[in-house]
Amino acid sequence: ILDCSHHPLRAHRACRSILMGWMGAGSSNLGPVSGVSGEFSLPVRVYIEDTDAGGIVYYVNYLKYFERARTEFMRARGYDKPAFLGPDSLFVVTQAAVQYRAPARLDEVLQVTAGLASVGAATLAFVQRVYRGPDCLVDAEISIALVDTVSGKPKRLPASLRRDLQG
Amino acid sequence: ILDCSHHPLRAHRACRSILMGWMGAGSSNLGPVSGVSGEFSLPVRVYIEDTDAGGIVYYVNYLKYFERARTEFMRARGYDKPAFLGPDSLFVVTQAAVQYRAPARLDEVLQVTAGLASVGAATLAFVQRVYRGPDCLVDAEISIALVDTVSGKPKRLPASLRRDLQG
Amino acid sequence: ILDCSHHPLRAHRACRSILMGWMGAGSSNLGPVSGVSGEFSLPVRVYIEDTDAGGIVYYVNYLKYFERARTEFMRARGYDKPAFLGPDSLFVVTQAAVQYRAPARLDEVLQVTAGLASVGAATLAFVQRVYRGPDCLVDAEISIALVDTVSGKPKRLPASLRRDLQG
Amino acid sequence: ILDCSHHPLRAHRACRSILMGWMGAGSSNLGPVSGVSGEFSLPVRVYIEDTDAGGIVYYVNYLKYFERARTEFMRARGYDKPAFLGPDSLFVVTQAAVQYRAPARLDEVLQVTAGLASVGAATLAFVQRVYRGPDCLVDAEISIALVDTVSGKPKRLPASLRRDLQG
Repeated sequence: ILDCSHHPLRAHRACRSILMGWMGAGSSNLGPVSGVSGEFSLPVRVYIEDTDAGGIVYYVNYLKYFERARTEFMRARGYDKPAFLGPDSLFVVTQAAVQYRAPARLDEVLQVTAGLASVGAATLAFVQRVYRGPDCLVDAEISIALVDTVSGKPKRLPASLRRDLQG
Repeated sequence: ILDCSHHPLRAHRACRSILMGWMGAGSSNLGPVSGVSGEFSLPVRVYIEDTDAGGIVYYVNYLKYFERARTEFMRARGYDKPAFLGPDSLFVVTQAAVQYRAPARLDEVLQVTAGLASVGAATLAFVQRVYRGPDCLVDAEISIALVDTVSGKPKRLPASLRRDLQG
Repeated sequence: ILDCSHHPLRAHRACRSILMGWMGAGSSNLGPVSGVSGEFSLPVRVYIEDTDAGGIVYYVNYLKYFERARTEFMRARGYDKPAFLGPDSLFVVTQAAVQYRAPARLDEVLQVTAGLASVGAATLAFVQRVYRGPDCLVDAEISIALVDTVSGKPKRLPASLRRDLQG
Repeated sequence: ILDCSHHPLRAHRACRSILMGWMGAGSSNLGPVSGVSGEFSLPVRVYIEDTDAGGIVYYVNYLKYFERARTEFMRARGYDKPAFLGPDSLFVVTQAAVQYRAPARLDEVLQVTAGLASVGAATLAFVQRVYRGPDCLVDAEISIALVDTVSGKPKRLPASLRRDLQG
């Protein structure tokens, strides 16, 4: 079984401790998908549009899968237009760190997870993974920020959003 | 040599006569790339992003190539923002008919052409082809319309645009 | 209500009679989604990956939706690897004719249909549509051919496939 | 001027020291584009296919730009088929860390760079950036590994490749 929680990238970057710091002792937010409070899992079928001439999912496309899962994570919390919070506010990705461990292939069904790792003044950090059965194929840390659509400047997350996400 | 000018699709749809009607006798707008008045040709390199698990260019992506060529066709006529004619006007594709004759592959350099076939009140029709050397791999007829960005309704093409395109 | 069955493209190309000829009198294969024998409908959510700077679904991406629906159409008939029929046989798209009637937007849920219009010696022709509720936004005729992966030449469809698709 | 060499991501992850360790004292491989030995820069035009409903380049697509630049970096060193080293060997991306600092927009021309940061037994690490004029919009560290196409296991980089890349 490929287990993303022990891969070299994570140890190397000491992401675990950073994330643990936010989540508190005993948090299981980084564990496997099933039964984890607050983690969202979206099934994704691999279509030929997702593949490349190497016969595997084109690595760039996992970022699309991750965004679909984040979007559904938000929708499950009542946000029908997850990319835009009102007409002047847009979420943008500010950082993405992705570790590719094993390839997915055409016609497979994957589980793509989205778990909230931290909430800042203007930012949300997600830990996300792609599973095929028990195997963790890809994992990522994705940070998004709320920005003003005109100025492009970061905007404070509404208190109501913070409540909805942390409740 | 694969010659798009005689393929079954075209005959079947009687596109030739329609196009000829507009272009008038003796027009060579549908001929090969080199030396044709008004036809634009853009070199495109095939990257792995363009391919699929069949080991060939994913057929959907030729439509991206065609749009790049139409965009450069317009830019060559002085339109720096070819998708938008002012803040309220947007070009949208209304019809696309594509015939795939032979596949392109990773790392190849293709020539993608854009020739104006007709100019309507609110629409432009392009004939476009993908060549690898002398071989015509794909050909298409693409119609675009100018629409109002708010209402979505067709808008009359500015007289200046018509002049610039037909001159 | 936007009704694809009466749009100008179809009349102009006389597709109706061609399709009707294959389907026989009284066939309802081109009618609305619900309750149509043999027509498949796949719900598709619009994600930000599908949109463009015009604020609408990038028109190229409907072809990806159509392929997802064709793939599920085949999977529903027992074909687990719909793109490849055995190691040496691959389905490729040979023709696509698409009419765009109205745009879809971020976060909408669409119904994407796939109905088999004809079965040839080496080819399948599909009629496909994108609906948002009762409105037909896009419709298309897509032809695919079975080819040898090495030579690229068309291959006769297996009798078993023909039975599975027409039964 | 947006200057990627001092952004928080890099400091936070101590990437600088890791990279500097490989490159040795005085290396300028991470500096600005012009006049840097070994750094490759590819001009990329933003087309509508690259944008999203936020009106900016869809952040996922910068990874496509980065791959185009890495591909041309390799091609400039004589590798005509940069994704495949022979029939059994394929380069795959194993890690990508991307920092998005400012958005690019439709019709802009960007410079996308690829600089080799380290060469391992089976891996290459690149530092890559997207510039619009003097502004650094995006920067990334991308690691790729040579793998066997059948087993998926890492393969030792050929000595000739190591020479070609470091020479």
